[in-house]
Amino acid sequence: MRFGIFYEHQLPRGGEVDERRLYRDALVQAEIADRVGVDYLWEVEHHFLEEYSHSSAPEVFLAAASQRTERIRLGHGIVQLPPEVNHPARVAERIAALDLVSDGRVEFGTGEASSSAELGGFGIRRDRKREEWQDAIDAITRMFVEEPFAGWRSEHLRMPPRNVIPKTVQKPHPPLWVACSRRETIRFAARNGMGALSFSFVEPEDAAKWVDEYYRIIGSDECVPAGFAVNPNVTVVLPMMLHEDEATAIGRGIDGAHFFGFALAHYYGTTPHDPGRTNVWDEFQERRAARGFDRDRIIANAESLNVNVGSLRGAVGTPEQVTELVRRYEDAGVDQVAFVLQAGPNKHEHICESLELFGSSVLPHFLEGREERENAKAERLAPAIEAALARRAPARTLPPGYRIDEDAELARANRPRSLRSEARRRVQQGFYLLVHGRSDAQIERRFGPAAQRVLFSGMARAYDPSAAFEGALQFRLTRTDGAATTWTIIVRGGRARVRPGKAAEPALALTVATADFLRLLAGDANPAMLLMDGRLKLQGDVELAPRISEMFGGPSPY
Amino acid sequence: MRFGIFYEHQLPRGGEVDERRLYRDALVQAEIADRVGVDYLWEVEHHFLEEYSHSSAPEVFLAAASQRTERIRLGHGIVQLPPEVNHPARVAERIAALDLVSDGRVEFGTGEASSSAELGGFGIRRDRKREEWQDAIDAITRMFVEEPFAGWRSEHLRMPPRNVIPKTVQKPHPPLWVACSRRETIRFAARNGMGALSFSFVEPEDAAKWVDEYYRIIGSDECVPAGFAVNPNVTVVLPMMLHEDEATAIGRGIDGAHFFGFALAHYYGTTPHDPGRTNVWDEFQERRAARGFDRDRIIANAESLNVNVGSLRGAVGTPEQVTELVRRYEDAGVDQVAFVLQAGPNKHEHICESLELFGSSVLPHFLEGREERENAKAERLAPAIEAALARRAPARTLPPGYRIDEDAELARANRPRSLRSEARRRVQQGFYLLVHGRSDAQIERRFGPAAQRVLFSGMARAYDPSAAFEGALQFRLTRTDGAATTWTIIVRGGRARVRPGKAAEPALALTVATADFLRLLAGDANPAMLLMDGRLKLQGDVELAPRISEMFGGPSPY
Repeated sequence: MRFGIFYEHQLPRGGEVDERRLYRDALVQAEIADRVGVDYLWEVEHHFLEEYSHSSAPEVFLAAASQRTERIRLGHGIVQLPPEVNHPARVAERIAALDLVSDGRVEFGTGEASSSAELGGFGIRRDRKREEWQDAIDAITRMFVEEPFAGWRSEHLRMPPRNVIPKTVQKPHPPLWVACSRRETIRFAARNGMGALSFSFVEPEDAAKWVDEYYRIIGSDECVPAGFAVNPNVTVVLPMMLHEDEATAIGRGIDGAHFFGFALAHYYGTTPHDPGRTNVWDEFQERRAARGFDRDRIIANAESLNVNVGSLRGAVGTPEQVTELVRRYEDAGVDQVAFVLQAGPNKHEHICESLELFGSSVLPHFLEGREERENAKAERLAPAIEAALARRAPARTLPPGYRIDEDAELARANRPRSLRSEARRRVQQGFYLLVHGRSDAQIERRFGPAAQRVLFSGMARAYDPSAAFEGALQFRLTRTDGAATTWTIIVRGGRARVRPGKAAEPALALTVATADFLRLLAGDANPAMLLMDGRLKLQGDVELAPRISEMFGGPSPY
Repeated sequence: MRFGIFYEHQLPRGGEVDERRLYRDALVQAEIADRVGVDYLWEVEHHFLEEYSHSSAPEVFLAAASQRTERIRLGHGIVQLPPEVNHPARVAERIAALDLVSDGRVEFGTGEASSSAELGGFGIRRDRKREEWQDAIDAITRMFVEEPFAGWRSEHLRMPPRNVIPKTVQKPHPPLWVACSRRETIRFAARNGMGALSFSFVEPEDAAKWVDEYYRIIGSDECVPAGFAVNPNVTVVLPMMLHEDEATAIGRGIDGAHFFGFALAHYYGTTPHDPGRTNVWDEFQERRAARGFDRDRIIANAESLNVNVGSLRGAVGTPEQVTELVRRYEDAGVDQVAFVLQAGPNKHEHICESLELFGSSVLPHFLEGREERENAKAERLAPAIEAALARRAPARTLPPGYRIDEDAELARANRPRSLRSEARRRVQQGFYLLVHGRSDAQIERRFGPAAQRVLFSGMARAYDPSAAFEGALQFRLTRTDGAATTWTIIVRGGRARVRPGKAAEPALALTVATADFLRLLAGDANPAMLLMDGRLKLQGDVELAPRISEMFGGPSPY
């Protein structure tokens, strides 16, 4: 079990609105947490969420904290990945810079943004943000490991090859996390081989089911890592306030816990919000009870802490109660509990006291045997992680000889996006329907030499000069009757042309059945599978093979 | 005279490539500079410029430095403003967060990006980046002062109203600067009321002419501040290395100074660059002499330091030489000299030694009477600055009642940009040609009541519901013959309609000559001038007047 503290930088209008003190106090709290042995300092990225979160530039706060702490991990919980908010290269750069100034203490949490304030504010389409996330995390992790980053071309990001610098201290990159709010997103985290940062205030006994499912997926074929390392961890986030006297703990912490829950519902629900005018604190005062945050329903002397039963209480209580609660999460297999102390009107001095008390009276119960348990877990998961990483498309190597060319790069970047990719999608789909479920002979009949010429000419026309390839690619398409046709694409000076017949010295020669080749182009066959089955044969520079789709305008970014 | 140190985070491939040490050493140097009395720590933002600058996330480095220093100003030198690189809201947020963690020590330098590596990498059009800069700085400074930011609609940025948080400690916002590389951009800085950060390695005697022109413009009608405060300052950037023995100073510092100049030319000239492959350090070794960076031409015992004569030397020399050089800049009216010590292969320990020596042997010569001189300058410029600020379009007040509405905001954000604004531009231009240079009577003849109805109906159709206005606007258009026509636009529930005649209780009633009204719409007359001349009369909520153009689809963002 590891521990974290989690910051939203809340600033309800109820009290003195002093953002400078808010940040200054948080840095002092980070120092204490670091000293008493808390492992993680998490910081959100939210935009325009007045009162709920004044943490819109976590890269700045975490960098400041890096110089006030020595050991604590610095977690982005999370970075908003839609390119409308943060350009993927800027994300890679700031993560690396933070890793440098903190000597390798960064945890890279990611998310999609979800509030209307943020989606509307940055113009992000709700129905596309998942796709944007997937695209951005793939590009960013490649920026970390590829030297140079070999470029990108997708609906959401177009970027020519560049060496994105600086690089991270941690290799291949800092541990990856994704924000989760539902069971479905925990599964999503597992399928992407990322740590799950769960904000759902779930009871330990329910968490157990989630954790089991998470680790089942991590160990299965479903896990295809989004990055170049797997981070198998589940973190649960909870409000917290500690005191030896339970009533005092509640008195100090329950308004913060409740405001956190209320303001979350305010921004993520349908409550109207007038920027700069709506007073969330006043609304909280008026409606907390009606919304299930009744102060009077929280009674001391509960037998055990129930996080979300009746009303959100979280880990507000005595060291004994919180120790017992954490133990239940530990039994459920949760890897980390991250506490929100700075919430609503909670006072700096109470937060500092709670952190000290946590360090002396809760944390020590969880240290014994921790390293051994963590080592055993790592050993147990190692084979599954190795297998998962083998399923991820590898880092690319840009062939030398690319030249930065502003005009050509601008022209490519500004080609109309939607039309082009729409057309591409339609061609792809048409292709798929033509080949899917057909026999080899049926496909061959449709794609005789004339159709093949059209196909290869189209590929040549679609050649992307940023691929910076020079040389010849030879395609030998065999038929079921034993005959074969050979085509060569020659690329020179940024232009590609096609001619029938063999190449003199092909950089790469492919031999494949005509039907399989068309299935590959249509996305109806997997090149790795065909290779393993011996149905696709490569001679020459085999590293070129996975780049062919990209070079000739294929739909995949790699 | 004030002093700064300037960081690019250079890392030539010649030596050990250790980005972690590069950053760690720079933080130690910042501590020393702070202690010995250097006033400014400047940090660039560059992307993909391997070896020349590994400083791609200055917000992270400066935030780290904020916790290692107490007094030194933390300068972005500069932030790249094209929205393709940094969303304007993200810039406002990170500047404010840095101002919070540093207790108000931020200097906000801005620039457009200029290298092909950056423009091509982010897809920025060279012919549009100046316009993007102007648009972004206007939006960002409004985000600092408007609560809430009243929204934006331009070619480069569309954003609905939002309260951009946190806010800066310094009010109205941190001092603004702009990167300058030519005399023209110094003028540009003055016209925008911003500090000039000059990178042109100019001799003091030439600088004098630039400075004179800069302050002449600051004091003239040409100065219309880009922000809500004027920052009248000229800073010159120079390479530096100090030692009591001149030959030792040269031995320690000239390669760094020369590599700085050579690598700058590499990235900003036409030298081909292959990302991740080109070795700028090797090219420097081979070609430095041919490019004017001949080590052997730098001779000790020069009578005085000539910054750029023969070969870039800057402030590499003895404390006496550098004191004399700084004195010449001071005499030229330069306000700050910022030194680049961390350049090329320059060694950490030599940089630290130079900083200590600078603090003990150069800086003290410039302290006497400094405060008095600065106060006198502030007093001298105060009336001009006040006049300049009155020329800037003021901060806006969004009327209460706006509601965040993701779907409506998305729909507005995704309206085709170029077509719409292109059409608008054409209408505007046509209008201009119709009214420009015509007499009142001529214009009246063209715009009788029928034409007026068409015009007002068009305005009503173009109403932008994000203006969140409810009520009636009454327009009384007078004619030279004494007659008048009155129109009312009524806005209710996000929709506007027009009808002839007076309003019962107009929120705002305008009275203006028909011809002047059309000149206003065509951009051929200035509303402030018409008001002062008594040719435009307002009754009711006069703050609505400057918003009319924005509310009804006008071309201006405010």
